[in-house]
Order: sequence, then structure tokens, then C-alpha cells
Amino acid sequence: VSPIITLTTDFGTRDSYVAEMKGVILGLAPTVRLIDVSHEVEPQQITEGALAVEAAASWFPAGTIHLAVVDPGVGTARRGLVITARGHVFVGPDNGVFTPLLTEADWQAFELTEPQFRLPRVSQTFHGRDVFAPAAAHVALGVPPSRFGRPVTDPVRLGWAQAHRVAGGVAGRVIHVDRFGNLITSIGAGEVQTLTAGGTAAVRVGGRALPLVGTYAELPPAGAGALVGSRQRLEIAVRDGSAAVSLRARVGMPVVLSRTMRPKTLRSRRGSSSRGA
Amino acid sequence: VSPIITLTTDFGTRDSYVAEMKGVILGLAPTVRLIDVSHEVEPQQITEGALAVEAAASWFPAGTIHLAVVDPGVGTARRGLVITARGHVFVGPDNGVFTPLLTEADWQAFELTEPQFRLPRVSQTFHGRDVFAPAAAHVALGVPPSRFGRPVTDPVRLGWAQAHRVAGGVAGRVIHVDRFGNLITSIGAGEVQTLTAGGTAAVRVGGRALPLVGTYAELPPAGAGALVGSRQRLEIAVRDGSAAVSLRARVGMPVVLSRTMRPKTLRSRRGSSSRGA
Amino acid sequence: VSPIITLTTDFGTRDSYVAEMKGVILGLAPTVRLIDVSHEVEPQQITEGALAVEAAASWFPAGTIHLAVVDPGVGTARRGLVITARGHVFVGPDNGVFTPLLTEADWQAFELTEPQFRLPRVSQTFHGRDVFAPAAAHVALGVPPSRFGRPVTDPVRLGWAQAHRVAGGVAGRVIHVDRFGNLITSIGAGEVQTLTAGGTAAVRVGGRALPLVGTYAELPPAGAGALVGSRQRLEIAVRDGSAAVSLRARVGMPVVLSRTMRPKTLRSRRGSSSRGA
Repeated sequence: VSPIITLTTDFGTRDSYVAEMKGVILGLAPTVRLIDVSHEVEPQQITEGALAVEAAASWFPAGTIHLAVVDPGVGTARRGLVITARGHVFVGPDNGVFTPLLTEADWQAFELTEPQFRLPRVSQTFHGRDVFAPAAAHVALGVPPSRFGRPVTDPVRLGWAQAHRVAGGVAGRVIHVDRFGNLITSIGAGEVQTLTAGGTAAVRVGGRALPLVGTYAELPPAGAGALVGSRQRLEIAVRDGSAAVSLRARVGMPVVLSRTMRPKTLRSRRGSSSRGA
Repeated sequence: VSPIITLTTDFGTRDSYVAEMKGVILGLAPTVRLIDVSHEVEPQQITEGALAVEAAASWFPAGTIHLAVVDPGVGTARRGLVITARGHVFVGPDNGVFTPLLTEADWQAFELTEPQFRLPRVSQTFHGRDVFAPAAAHVALGVPPSRFGRPVTDPVRLGWAQAHRVAGGVAGRVIHVDRFGNLITSIGAGEVQTLTAGGTAAVRVGGRALPLVGTYAELPPAGAGALVGSRQRLEIAVRDGSAAVSLRARVGMPVVLSRTMRPKTLRSRRGSSSRGA
Repeated sequence: VSPIITLTTDFGTRDSYVAEMKGVILGLAPTVRLIDVSHEVEPQQITEGALAVEAAASWFPAGTIHLAVVDPGVGTARRGLVITARGHVFVGPDNGVFTPLLTEADWQAFELTEPQFRLPRVSQTFHGRDVFAPAAAHVALGVPPSRFGRPVTDPVRLGWAQAHRVAGGVAGRVIHVDRFGNLITSIGAGEVQTLTAGGTAAVRVGGRALPLVGTYAELPPAGAGALVGSRQRLEIAVRDGSAAVSLRARVGMPVVLSRTMRPKTLRSRRGSSSRGA
């Protein structure tokens, strides 16, 4: 079976930039399968690109190659990287876009310096096509990551919104707003479980207190609530509506999950929900 | 030749949701070919998803698997289905998204209950990834639809805008507005042919009377008219413009096709047209 | 290795039109690999489609088939074409969408008239699906272009924004605005090189004078400048911003590159840039 290369960029789909990258890859590695993750990362928003790569990568089979190009530093001395982590390979600029994959000790990184794995002519403005796409294609052809350049032990890491314990709860932030207006937070499923074990919890966001539920369908019509979503993070949703609109929320907004003794009253309602997925 | 799976969702292309589904599919059925129909179905609009699946499906080769996930009821007791119809296979929630395919007697439906054809851990909010994508992959691997669960004889059907005969004509509604602003109606090509046999016809919509023409190019510049479009439905178009804007039209607006005796005067003009396709 | 077909249209990705074309192609040529260039060409804007095809094509391997359907004349007597040029094959309407490929003497064009290479039933409104997609599939299957119909020696060519010499410089126009707000101009890399050999240059656009730099990173924060971009054309960019917004620029705006004797002062600054690519 031929290798898979996924693509995550901020190039949009109106221009031909993504297709130029794919043409370069197929010219070098003709049997590769190409899968788009997203090309609508907000221009230059490295954190948003990092979250998209992290969310998608774990659902692909081991050995998948993930190309991530959100690259405001193109044309500067910022490095290019090939990283192996979690059984996958990641290719892109060394600007923090791979931060979420560097949390454990299982990674290795190499600088992309070998000229033989680039296009013969490298532009100053489009390393996605001229450096990173050919590198990903060469990985797909079997070139070991260590052959691309020297090991890198200090890849750039973004300051990352984390969750932290506060009196009676966990505090975090909104880190992403999805298409449905759901708010994805920095509070992980494990923290929710620890906090709620044997009790119940409520979430405070934007001055409102919301119940913690198990699924969208437990919310009353147009009701807002929090739940552990498909990314294994605490999410805030409005049933059949947009939490981002209802709560005037945006990335960075503080969110606090607190333990309560109130019994859950919303448990068994049934109905339609906020993200049909 | 490896099987084709098409994907129709309301997930958008900004988030990683579609890629997560594709990763799951390729992990199970590595040689499958994946084709996007649309991920820009208006969130939660089951009818719009149903029209997209219907419009696309018939152009694919027999045996194609069509995955359709517009799923406001995720997390409730709504069923999941595998349906065979018209020589194709359809996978998705039992909420009416497959209504247009259930018009004849040639279909069979089965409930998606067998745990072995799901991911080991099923979230409450993303059955597209955890239930429907693995089901489609298993169909691609050759699992017969009857192995997914019990037969279903009463799948959910949406109330559907139909055309009906009125004095001297046929009445219907706008069921879709496409990218070009063309209005797709519930009046089918067969009804248009029956009505116009040996005569001519006019269309009334939004208080205006429009000619029935054979192609966009018969319309005068910026002129509005009706024609049988590529979906074999009566469509309303404005040459080099948007009928939706010109006629302030939207989904649900009534449309009446009436027989007239006026000779067609617009037949042989030539020029550019409203949807270059 | 199976052939590649790229697709460039103005159909958008919300409707099922693109998927219908892909279904037709895969029904005829099951092993073809399909790559989207763009489906967000502004409706009916043939020039924009032509620029996208030109920008993408050269990055694909020889023998790639490029399907381009921006077709306001569908349903009129406008011809359909198969063109061989630069080692690639191009399929679409004869309305100028292939103009940039017809600049040298290495092309041959044939009219798409043979009924055996169309769908059995051809609609009046969607030749992308009924005529051009099947033609591309047949090229992929090995049908020689000359078998589709008579040779065409006078394909439609668009009046094209060119660059021309003026006193002390070169004058051109903005021909495209990309997602990042960069302005792509009709002035080519060769003209820039000729003009700047042994000296420096400045660009006038919208009443402002901008420096010519080597990469985005040479610009001061929020600064505007011109450079030779990844399409081998003079581009105008604003660092970490949108030149289209800052300069209130749009397609058609005049741009003049003039030789100056001022030394380059911006050469070695480093920082983030306007299109991370």
C-alpha cells in the first residue's frame, strides 16, 4: 500500500498553491495518496495550524506523513524540520506548528538541509512547494529522516494554553472555535474525569454558568452546556445553535470547570444536538 | 479496481473533522478512493444534504459507497443505516438524508448495530468518525450490508417538496439555490415535457412571468428564464447573473409552470449564459 | 502509474457539480488520480481560470491532463478543445481559458466533436460533466487527441494584460489578488532581472513608491514592497498584512517598475513575512 501524505496549510483553496505542492509531490512519488486536513487555517496563525495537525494525525494509520505549512517566517533563517513522533512523520517549518507532538520523549527531529531533497531552484517565498513538499515526497519514497540533515534537539515550541488547577476546579481557555460555533477548550478529558469523579460539575464562561453533560442531546432546545467532545477536550456547545454567537466567545476566553454537589438534572433528555457528527 | 467512497457532510473544510473520517477509513481499507461531494451543506440541514447525495450518486459507477453525515441527532437514539439502492450503497444516520433514494422498491436497509464494525471507542458527538466511517470502510472491504444489523423497513423519510398539477399547469417550489444563484425546483423534467408537448410554457415565480427556454444562451443579456437543468429539474436562471438576487428568491418559494400558446420567440439567440458548466 | 487529471472550475465546492464530473471520470477511467486546482474561480471569470491553470500546470509531471471548465458560453456554438502543449494535455471550452499555454509554437489543438467520447446524453447546461469530463477520461485511457475531432488552428485567445517598456522602466497591471492579499502583476521575472541588472529598482502602484526586495522578510513590520514571487512574476506584498487592503488595490490596477540608483537599504533585515509558503 502506498504512503499517505496529509496537508495542512493556510493557503486557502482559491489559489493554485496547494495544487502546486501536490504536483511536486506526485512528480517525485507518483503513488502517494494525498489527503487534505485543512487549507483554511487563518493566515499566519501557527497555533491554529498546530491544533488541526494534532487533531487529525492520530486518526491516520502509523507511518502517515503530515505536511504542515503555516509559515510566516519563509525567507528568513527559520529552519525546516522532519520529525518522527507517535509513529508518524511530520514535515514543515520550525516555528512551533508541531508543538503538540513534542510533549513526550518519543520524538526525533532533523533539519531539512540536504539540497538533494529540495527542488533544484528554491524560491524565497514558497518553501511549501520548493522545500517541504519534496521532503515529504522523499520520506514517502523511503528516505530515512536522519538523512535530511543534522538532528535538532531544540525545536521551537509555542506557549500553549494549558489547563491548571484552581480552588475547587480547573481553569483553562478557549483554544478553537469550530464551524458549528462549538468552543474547544484547553481542558482535557482526563482533567474533567478527575474533577467529576463521584460528583457533578459546572462550567463558567463569559459570566454564565453552564451544566456539564454527556452529549449534545441532553441540552434543552437552544440550551448551552459543556461536554467532553470528540477531540477529548472540554467543549462548550449550544444545542441547534452556535456557542460562539450565544456567548460572544472567541479564542483565548477563560473557562473554569468547578465541582458541584448539585445532582445532574439534564441527564436523560433526548433531542437533536449541536454538532451532528 | 478499489472501491470508491464519496463523502457528503455539513462539517465544513476549516476543521479537521473530514480528515479524521478519512484517516479512519484509510486505516481500515487502505486502497479505497475518497471523493468529496460537499462538506458545505448548511449545518444541520438534512434536506440540503439529501439533495446533494441524490444529485451526485447517479454519476458514480455501480458499487460506489456514499457516506452522508448531516446528523443533528448524534448522541440520541436515532439509528444508523446501511442502505443498498440503485446499485449503490449508502451509509449514514436514519434521519431522512436518504429520502430521495427510497422512492422505488429496489432498496434494502440495515441498522448499524454490530460493534465489530465501529471504532473500539465511540464518542457521543462524532458518529461520522466513530460509526459511519468505519461502516463505510467495512462495506468497501466486502462485508455484506446484512451483517451490520437487523433489516429496517421504516427508515425516516423527510416531507419532500413535490410538484403537483394545477389548472393548466404544474406547481412546485424552489428546493435549492446553487453557487451561481440558479434556482433548482421540485418540478421534474418529465412534468415539463408532458406539459409542453406540442406547445409552449411560461413560469411564474416571485410575481414575474419568465419564458421557458432550452439553454441559458437563449436568454437576452441579464434576462431571466426557466429551463430543464443538468439535474433533470426545472431551474430558473438569469443570464450572466444570479436569479436568487434578481428575483429575491430562496428555498421554499412557489413556482408555477403554465402552458401557453405564445410561440417561443427566444429560441435562436446566442451568447453567454448563466452557469458555465 | 495511472494518469493524473487536475480540475479547475468556477463551480464552488458547496454544490455537487464537481463530484458529478469526478464520478463520470472514474466510471470511464477507474484508476485515474484526481487533483483539484481550484473550484473557486470567480463565476464566469475566464481570465482568473486561465491564470490558475497556468500557475498549477507546470508543477505536475509530464503527461498530466488539465481539465478547465469556466464556461459562460455553454449551450452556444462555442467549441470544445483538447490541446497538447508543453508536454501536458488540456481539455475545456474554446473561450480563452488556455491562452497562457498558446504563447509558443509547441501546441496542437483539436475540436471535441466525436460523439463516442461524450456521455450518451449531453445536457445544454453542463458540458463540464457531459463533454469535458468524458474527454479527459478518454485521454487518460490513451485516446490520441487527434481522434477527438478536426485540428483547430485559431483557438480563442484572451486579450491579456502584458508588460511593456516605458521610459526608464516597465509598466504592467495587477492580474490577480491571492488569499494573502498579495498582488500578482503582469511583469515577469525576466523583465525584472533585465531592468535591475547592476542597479536597483522601485515600484509605483496606487500613488505609492515601494522598494524591490528579495523576500518578504526584508520588509519592515507592516511594510509594503515588491518582489519576484513564486509564480515568477513581480508581486506586491505587505509584511504580515494584505497589500490589497493597504493599497486598496484590485485586478487591473497599473504598476510601474522603474530603475533607481539608490542603494538597496532593506536587504538584510529578517523577520516574518507576508505569505508563509
